[in-house]
Amino acid sequence: MRLLSFHHNGKQALGLRLGDEVVDLTAVGLPATLDELLRGGPDAMAAAMKAGNTARTRLSLSDIDWLPPVQSPSKAIAVGLNYVDHAAESKFEAPTYPVLFHRFPSSWVGHKQPIVRPHVSTQFDYEGELLVVIGKAGRYIGKDDALNHVAGYSVFNDGSIRDYQFKSAQWMMGKNFDRSGSFGPEFVSADELPSGATGLRLQTRLNGTVLQDANTRDMIFDVATLVSVCSEPFALQPGDIIIAGTPSGVGLARKPQVFMKAGDVCEVEIEGVGLLSNPVVDGD
Amino acid sequence: MRLLSFHHNGKQALGLRLGDEVVDLTAVGLPATLDELLRGGPDAMAAAMKAGNTARTRLSLSDIDWLPPVQSPSKAIAVGLNYVDHAAESKFEAPTYPVLFHRFPSSWVGHKQPIVRPHVSTQFDYEGELLVVIGKAGRYIGKDDALNHVAGYSVFNDGSIRDYQFKSAQWMMGKNFDRSGSFGPEFVSADELPSGATGLRLQTRLNGTVLQDANTRDMIFDVATLVSVCSEPFALQPGDIIIAGTPSGVGLARKPQVFMKAGDVCEVEIEGVGLLSNPVVDGD
Repeated sequence: MRLLSFHHNGKQALGLRLGDEVVDLTAVGLPATLDELLRGGPDAMAAAMKAGNTARTRLSLSDIDWLPPVQSPSKAIAVGLNYVDHAAESKFEAPTYPVLFHRFPSSWVGHKQPIVRPHVSTQFDYEGELLVVIGKAGRYIGKDDALNHVAGYSVFNDGSIRDYQFKSAQWMMGKNFDRSGSFGPEFVSADELPSGATGLRLQTRLNGTVLQDANTRDMIFDVATLVSVCSEPFALQPGDIIIAGTPSGVGLARKPQVFMKAGDVCEVEIEGVGLLSNPVVDGD
Repeated sequence: MRLLSFHHNGKQALGLRLGDEVVDLTAVGLPATLDELLRGGPDAMAAAMKAGNTARTRLSLSDIDWLPPVQSPSKAIAVGLNYVDHAAESKFEAPTYPVLFHRFPSSWVGHKQPIVRPHVSTQFDYEGELLVVIGKAGRYIGKDDALNHVAGYSVFNDGSIRDYQFKSAQWMMGKNFDRSGSFGPEFVSADELPSGATGLRLQTRLNGTVLQDANTRDMIFDVATLVSVCSEPFALQPGDIIIAGTPSGVGLARKPQVFMKAGDVCEVEIEGVGLLSNPVVDGD
């Protein structure tokens, strides 16, 4: 099942995508975002499927404005240096324990929405990543049980302002500029993908040029491990997201370096999950 | 003006404290938390004052359960190593740029509520800190204008699980265990304190023993600088909080080390702002 959040005629809604059409689930009583749906309880996916079967309103994909599938998670946890080659190109040691930081929802936009290069920096970098959506709450989740807590997956561009990221040893600032990242195009339920979303090709392209090309099986810490570790300090909640880290090929590590600028188009594609595309604009 | 959030007879409310009594502002139509009040617009403080003058319901302080004054900020930003002596005891260089990380609201409780030592660690440390509450939205706020964006102040115990904090170079995990920090007892509007809340004595006591004793004037980056810097990556919003860093004397740096355990009582007191006291319990 593929769910998306969208704007249409001034209203926000959650939709079930069927090919080039979208069934408006909010029009038949479901919440307007995936995180609200998931917070409603364990039968969220069944409710969406059922509503999808009965809803009559269908829209064309070309008529909607895409929004991030999840908009107000209680937690959005990002993983650094989760591919060996990327750790090496970044001059960090490959981690023996997941490197975790956080992104505020104000730092991401949806599919096709512009991502913003702030006027205070020219070092606006892309990072294509797999995104995990939690479906069931839990604390100290065992690795064996972890995938039962995953509702599904999406694609994330962990856009980073590199000079700000390294102004101190804590990366928070550079990872949280307003509208610097993107999330989408849609949510894909876990049953549509290989277990743990492993073995999927991930590509990032800037203006059509492939700059990252990897496979999710090469993550140092797989999805089950990330869910387990992230549930130690705090209870994970339905709608929480884990952004699983980027492979090698980021702009900062290239010679010469490649940074995004107004007029560029950045695409992140993960096999079976989706193609997330965003134009780049100059902004505050 | 001193505002607090509280529970009474199963209801949550915002109160104006007058000596040992609390005027229930929610009973006369105001929101139940300070962040909701501040998000309502620039006249929030005036509305609270006016409601306080007309409200008839007064409760005794001894009859309420304290809650954190701010419960769902869009952003809660914490500052690391913001006192020279603490940076030195922590074996870090004194920063030349603010070290910023983030705390989730699930990681803090209110005044008198128990803070939790998780079963996975014995390294539960205290950090007494000044807390800044944003009253007016802004991006790229100039240092000269920064204090105009501050509604007021409170006290924070930036409780830290040290072994988790240093499992990777990013501190997020160790700073975000559920109910590991505390915030309160109340909010003090900026007009009741010196400009920028400078020159205030800050003490942390564990079971009555003074373990931190400093003055807010010794912060490396003062409140105006912190507000200005924190508004660069993102627009600060009313109700956002900045937790301004701890002085020397933390348990990790002591010889022998001092960590909190069940049965302890940890107090953080800032002159003119308040005394935040929490018992320590064992928990998940």
